[in-house]
Amino acid sequence: MPSEGASPADRRGASPRPAVTRLGILGGGQLGRMLALAAARLGIASVVYCPDPQSPAFDVAKEAIRAAYDDEAALADFAGRVDVITYEFENVPAATAAFLAGRVALRPNAAALRICQDRLDEKAFLTACGIETAPYRAVETRADLDAALAELGFPAVLKTRRLGYDGKGQAKIARPDDADAAFAAMAGAPAILEGWVPFAREVSILTARGLDGALRSYDVPENRHRDHILKFSRVPANIRSETARRAAEIGETVAARLDYLGLLAVELFVVEEDEGERLVANEIAPRVHNSGHWTESACLVSQFEQHVRAVCGLPLGDTARHSDVEMENLIGDEIARAAAILAEPAASLHHYGKSEVRPGRKMGHVNRLRPRR
Amino acid sequence: MPSEGASPADRRGASPRPAVTRLGILGGGQLGRMLALAAARLGIASVVYCPDPQSPAFDVAKEAIRAAYDDEAALADFAGRVDVITYEFENVPAATAAFLAGRVALRPNAAALRICQDRLDEKAFLTACGIETAPYRAVETRADLDAALAELGFPAVLKTRRLGYDGKGQAKIARPDDADAAFAAMAGAPAILEGWVPFAREVSILTARGLDGALRSYDVPENRHRDHILKFSRVPANIRSETARRAAEIGETVAARLDYLGLLAVELFVVEEDEGERLVANEIAPRVHNSGHWTESACLVSQFEQHVRAVCGLPLGDTARHSDVEMENLIGDEIARAAAILAEPAASLHHYGKSEVRPGRKMGHVNRLRPRR
Repeated sequence: MPSEGASPADRRGASPRPAVTRLGILGGGQLGRMLALAAARLGIASVVYCPDPQSPAFDVAKEAIRAAYDDEAALADFAGRVDVITYEFENVPAATAAFLAGRVALRPNAAALRICQDRLDEKAFLTACGIETAPYRAVETRADLDAALAELGFPAVLKTRRLGYDGKGQAKIARPDDADAAFAAMAGAPAILEGWVPFAREVSILTARGLDGALRSYDVPENRHRDHILKFSRVPANIRSETARRAAEIGETVAARLDYLGLLAVELFVVEEDEGERLVANEIAPRVHNSGHWTESACLVSQFEQHVRAVCGLPLGDTARHSDVEMENLIGDEIARAAAILAEPAASLHHYGKSEVRPGRKMGHVNRLRPRR
Repeated sequence: MPSEGASPADRRGASPRPAVTRLGILGGGQLGRMLALAAARLGIASVVYCPDPQSPAFDVAKEAIRAAYDDEAALADFAGRVDVITYEFENVPAATAAFLAGRVALRPNAAALRICQDRLDEKAFLTACGIETAPYRAVETRADLDAALAELGFPAVLKTRRLGYDGKGQAKIARPDDADAAFAAMAGAPAILEGWVPFAREVSILTARGLDGALRSYDVPENRHRDHILKFSRVPANIRSETARRAAEIGETVAARLDYLGLLAVELFVVEEDEGERLVANEIAPRVHNSGHWTESACLVSQFEQHVRAVCGLPLGDTARHSDVEMENLIGDEIARAAAILAEPAASLHHYGKSEVRPGRKMGHVNRLRPRR
């Protein structure tokens, strides 16, 4: 066993095991679970930290720590048990990230978290990168909202700057009459008004960046949502090849500019124009992403393994895709279809092992393969 | 959660989770680890039972039981925590198997274990199935050995009837002068003399049988050994299509005749003749097998998932292969090549996370894919 004191760079090569032998994962949901499974294939043991005693990731981790995100004694213990810490969700409290980053490598870095936690900062960052976003305005007061609506027009969407996901913290403003209710729905939280993007379809780009600065992107999935939750990702997407190249460029620009380590996703709108397609960035997820679950079955190295490789300082893996594929999320009681899906040819079920079914809860997914066209 | 009291058949369908929610695995080596990882993808939690406190499978199991195979209190506790028990090695003591089978479903069944634990019984079983084996004779005394050598000729191989693997408990007899040393090497254990098979190559067949009697075989790998340990498995094998069909027929006959639940491997010699190829069965492994590790990367459903599906009463998965592939075992300090392998294109490393490197110890494997020819 390599000594824990040596730096990862010193330890690589000399050791029969990867330099990082213990990976800390903040968050114990299905993404943390799939990260732990991928780490195990690389011989890396996972320590999962989550306040929820029913965390599905606990079942596949070497060690589990059940504690609150502001419990400094537990966080210090966590940091002391691992070589690197990563996270499965972007809403890690800033104080938690700072506390951990002071003790052990936190990858991706705290700056990436900070930017992605605030829709206004995120849009400003994307704009500074030369990446188009929806037009937007900051909204703190009712007067701000009126001024923003006057500039951006209708429809528009008012969103809290922080802590939104799966359509939560959002209100569509189709007409002036909707403004009052939308503003009230923000409950006084700082918000952002986003102008409407007339998109034809939604896609995403999954890009990893390694310790050596290497950048690797997967093929672009086309994503369909239902009730604001991802339902299907299909690869290849129905987009032009130059649009796919532009998507990879966007992912790689974002990763490089954030000095990012790990895998990230950028959600993108495809706008059709007379002369081609335009990509408009919606948001960045500084983590493995639901729209990358198909990589588990259609690529040799999944997004989960790619993320683990990157945060552990290992070489990035091959992102080549051997098959066409469609991923379907199984949400709430759709998981009751698991037995039927297991009997389908060319289908691979991933069941998250959650003990309780709840409406809107992601319970599993299925990847359906087809030979490449 | 379904009640633990209902039978698996009653619980399937009604439950949002697979009927079996807890799988017991006897043995904590790399095969147990890969079974636990596969079970996790199906939402099934693993309880691993092994005497070795350093068992690599413990790191990915929900629960670990460190106890001896003859510790009845621990075995009873184990049986009480799970819905089904399977095993990762064929040398499970008969008393252990019988004790467990009296408390909870043991899959594959104890009869399969019994037959595969004894080379003489195994050969008799194969012969009764109409499957050719090497010519053989039972050897208990020095006089038996002389009589057997007179009948089978030279070279021949003397093997202990029980507890052999990876070339252990075997002695080649090239000339009459070798007989004394070979007999002494058996140390008084009942033995079997096997006549020489002039094989051109070694292959294996991996066949699963489900609770509904369904049989599914994977494509045939061609296996190369080094120092009696599997080193490479390549798919497709260099064999005729009718030989591949015969291999599947052999796997399926064995599984059906054993009333088998789970995946098994039959090691086969390919003998070239003027009019074609003949298959001679070497031995049956009543478990997932090293020559099936390539299924992890080249098939949608791996041998590990297939075994878990079968023992848990779930439908068998698709065995179609999307790519050509070569698996290489990383033995002993070959695991030091892990970092270089991670940087190879089209390669997938599986590192078993064993803490100690020992000569001859299986430390990991790599699957290298090529597009299908």
